[in-house]
Amino acid sequence: MNKENLTMLTDFYEFTMANGYFEHGFVDKIAYFDMFFRKVPDGGGFAVMAGVEQLIEYLKDLTFNDEDIEFLRAKNIFCDEFLNYLRNFKFACDVWAIPEGTPIFPGEPIVTVRGPVIQAQFIETMILLTVNHQSLIATKANRIVRAADGRPVMEFGSRRAQGYNAAIMGARASYIAGCSGTACAIAERKYGVPALGTMAHSWIQLFDNEYDAFAAYAKTYPNDCTLLVDTYNVLKSGIPNAIKVFNDVLLPMGKRPKGIRIDSGDITYLSKKARKTLDDAGFEDCKIVASNSLDEFIIRDTLMQGAKIDSFGVGERLITSRSEPVFGGVYKLCGVEEDGKIVPKIKLSENVTKITTPCFKQVYRLFSKENDKAIADVITLHDEQIDNSQSYEIFDPEHIWKRKVVEDFYAKPLLVKIFDKGECVYESPELEDIKAFCKQQIDTLWDEVKRFENPHNYYVDLSQKLWDIKNDLLKQHSK
Amino acid sequence: MNKENLTMLTDFYEFTMANGYFEHGFVDKIAYFDMFFRKVPDGGGFAVMAGVEQLIEYLKDLTFNDEDIEFLRAKNIFCDEFLNYLRNFKFACDVWAIPEGTPIFPGEPIVTVRGPVIQAQFIETMILLTVNHQSLIATKANRIVRAADGRPVMEFGSRRAQGYNAAIMGARASYIAGCSGTACAIAERKYGVPALGTMAHSWIQLFDNEYDAFAAYAKTYPNDCTLLVDTYNVLKSGIPNAIKVFNDVLLPMGKRPKGIRIDSGDITYLSKKARKTLDDAGFEDCKIVASNSLDEFIIRDTLMQGAKIDSFGVGERLITSRSEPVFGGVYKLCGVEEDGKIVPKIKLSENVTKITTPCFKQVYRLFSKENDKAIADVITLHDEQIDNSQSYEIFDPEHIWKRKVVEDFYAKPLLVKIFDKGECVYESPELEDIKAFCKQQIDTLWDEVKRFENPHNYYVDLSQKLWDIKNDLLKQHSK
Repeated sequence: MNKENLTMLTDFYEFTMANGYFEHGFVDKIAYFDMFFRKVPDGGGFAVMAGVEQLIEYLKDLTFNDEDIEFLRAKNIFCDEFLNYLRNFKFACDVWAIPEGTPIFPGEPIVTVRGPVIQAQFIETMILLTVNHQSLIATKANRIVRAADGRPVMEFGSRRAQGYNAAIMGARASYIAGCSGTACAIAERKYGVPALGTMAHSWIQLFDNEYDAFAAYAKTYPNDCTLLVDTYNVLKSGIPNAIKVFNDVLLPMGKRPKGIRIDSGDITYLSKKARKTLDDAGFEDCKIVASNSLDEFIIRDTLMQGAKIDSFGVGERLITSRSEPVFGGVYKLCGVEEDGKIVPKIKLSENVTKITTPCFKQVYRLFSKENDKAIADVITLHDEQIDNSQSYEIFDPEHIWKRKVVEDFYAKPLLVKIFDKGECVYESPELEDIKAFCKQQIDTLWDEVKRFENPHNYYVDLSQKLWDIKNDLLKQHSK
Repeated sequence: MNKENLTMLTDFYEFTMANGYFEHGFVDKIAYFDMFFRKVPDGGGFAVMAGVEQLIEYLKDLTFNDEDIEFLRAKNIFCDEFLNYLRNFKFACDVWAIPEGTPIFPGEPIVTVRGPVIQAQFIETMILLTVNHQSLIATKANRIVRAADGRPVMEFGSRRAQGYNAAIMGARASYIAGCSGTACAIAERKYGVPALGTMAHSWIQLFDNEYDAFAAYAKTYPNDCTLLVDTYNVLKSGIPNAIKVFNDVLLPMGKRPKGIRIDSGDITYLSKKARKTLDDAGFEDCKIVASNSLDEFIIRDTLMQGAKIDSFGVGERLITSRSEPVFGGVYKLCGVEEDGKIVPKIKLSENVTKITTPCFKQVYRLFSKENDKAIADVITLHDEQIDNSQSYEIFDPEHIWKRKVVEDFYAKPLLVKIFDKGECVYESPELEDIKAFCKQQIDTLWDEVKRFENPHNYYVDLSQKLWDIKNDLLKQHSK
């Protein structure tokens, strides 16, 4: 399949700044940028990192063709040397990212870029766009999957996605975060996300009656016969016709039904009635699938009320993360090199939550040796080590009297190098492996962090060294 | 630029149904489908049609390559004849759509497809995905543009868009609906949406101080000098430094400043103070741009409180339509041909708002001859005519005693044929023309329909003939 080159998918100001850096002698200036986010969507306790594989593809493909250069030249604001620089563009940055599927928390760097400022700045838009989108959907999908409490959840939202890429990448991100598959065929074709589907209401309408429509489907797909039972009336028509077809068509072929799907009405009530009717007819093995404007709260309520649903299809509220459709990752300068030394940079704001953390950094996650649960994340200077063999004191960076000594732990660095001087040095894991890793990593979180509302605030602290540097800079600037 | 073939971007059930239609002798069965929506996002009075150009591209490109066929064959559920049919696929449907930029209302067909059911069904996912997404963004953008009351609105949301396509097509849809431009460079490169931008906070941070950063920018871009003034402190640092640079750098070059941008804080208060300071310094012509988590309500409030803002940059709340990120268009079977005659089809539901309107249809918009205002839309049978020279009685399809005689009007059919037996017969207008058409069409709506909340319910009625057919079908089915 052809793919579109996305180099020009960038905010125009990345060009005006790049050209300006060029003109003002900053071409070789080495800068450090972090991507981080400030708030977990939906008031949740953690987000799920996703999009790294697509970020790598983008960075590998960075190149300007002649038409791009002519387009920019026609703007009459860029100097020839800069346009030549773009024509011969060779990506030269170092990039670190937290691997896909990892739970991530507000305030910690999830992508870090070191390189010529003209380049490190330029890639801002696509880093944010790529990671914001997939992390948004992965985070939402994981909430919905957890609400379903072990029952499979299928992503069904392509038709309501915000554009083509949102449908495809949304299916991918949902799968990473625990969905069992998707309705989106191209997501399997391109990324191996299992795609499935059976019939729409129009299939039923096209036949003379519901029984004929079901019978035709059962004859064509005897091994995968899931019937949509709500076109006319679930209990009076859909279920009775389905049972008749199971008996008339499937059993004589030596086949068992796979399921029925309910796509409207009160799915809690209808699923209980449907279960009883199916069981009474000898189809205890026939699964019930529900799919009508679902999200984590409706699924949880439905199950609490005893709905007999075996799996869920979730559409628009998943694929757009409808309740909070924005993942607010930002990309900020945190340092520059001067004479080979890193000079930390901070962005102030009257809103203290918008003050950035300076320096070239690493993030360590501390796990308990006893139960492998995640205890806290500590943001450190990049070359700082955390000694597992000692106890380690963490403290709240805003209320520094809140302190805790962690013992019997191991520390794992989260940021992994994915590009070295412009060369990709990381191989993105297989999708199935990312999915398994995600599940395993989320299992390291305490249940308190996983609550949908008012979760426990997971600790994201700064090392003493980093805190000192930040505090000094704040003091300097407030003078 | 290469483009990706999107044929496989479809719900998997479109394949299972298509193969089933094939096996059950429905290959040549002619079916009619409508796309329509049930609710205007954000409780608004109308939506804005968008996405037709991309829908046309998709339909022109429909083709399955060898890898697609092998992918489907490996599923082991599709018959060889069907796979051969796909391999030799030739689109053969007739398609009608309401042109982009037209105000559209709930319940009326906005896309209609007639053709072999196997094809007309297959294109469901992409019709919905394409038109839902762009109409969502166009509808939201138009609200925001109307709130700005004549001031330019720029689309600034790429980094928070739901994927690459959402950034690019969102910029396009926003422009159609009245935005003046975008920050997204590729949207200009590909679609001619004017892109612009100046600097991020990192530009300021990279220099030794704000003054140097502003001065460098002014030297490089003396003709387009808009300075971002909120990196440190808008009133104490940003504005004074900007004025110094205007005086020190621009005036000696014989240039005037273009503007300042405020991206944080209380933009109402700050803009008033900034305006006064700029005016006092002799820069009455320096525009003030605001851009901080804006939407139609914040913009309206800000202006009502006397903010001195000349233009707005709107990001995440526009590009995701954050307050309602789903446009709920659906695609339903409304008829089939039997022996050359159209047999209407209806989908029932216990929820009456989900009952569909059967038949092959047209939508007429009635305009007043006196003032060219839109009076009502009337959905008719496709070949029905509305005689402008007579008076015409419209009535509420649910409360049929609510009737009104329309006189002195002209009727305009809204659905335009875009494909004839698979051949494109429509040339999508230039983007500028769509934009102008949109503005002109929205001007035909009464202000009451344009209110953000509790708007007047614009009439969307059925012709007597269509109402009779629907009513007969409902009676038949309820037996």
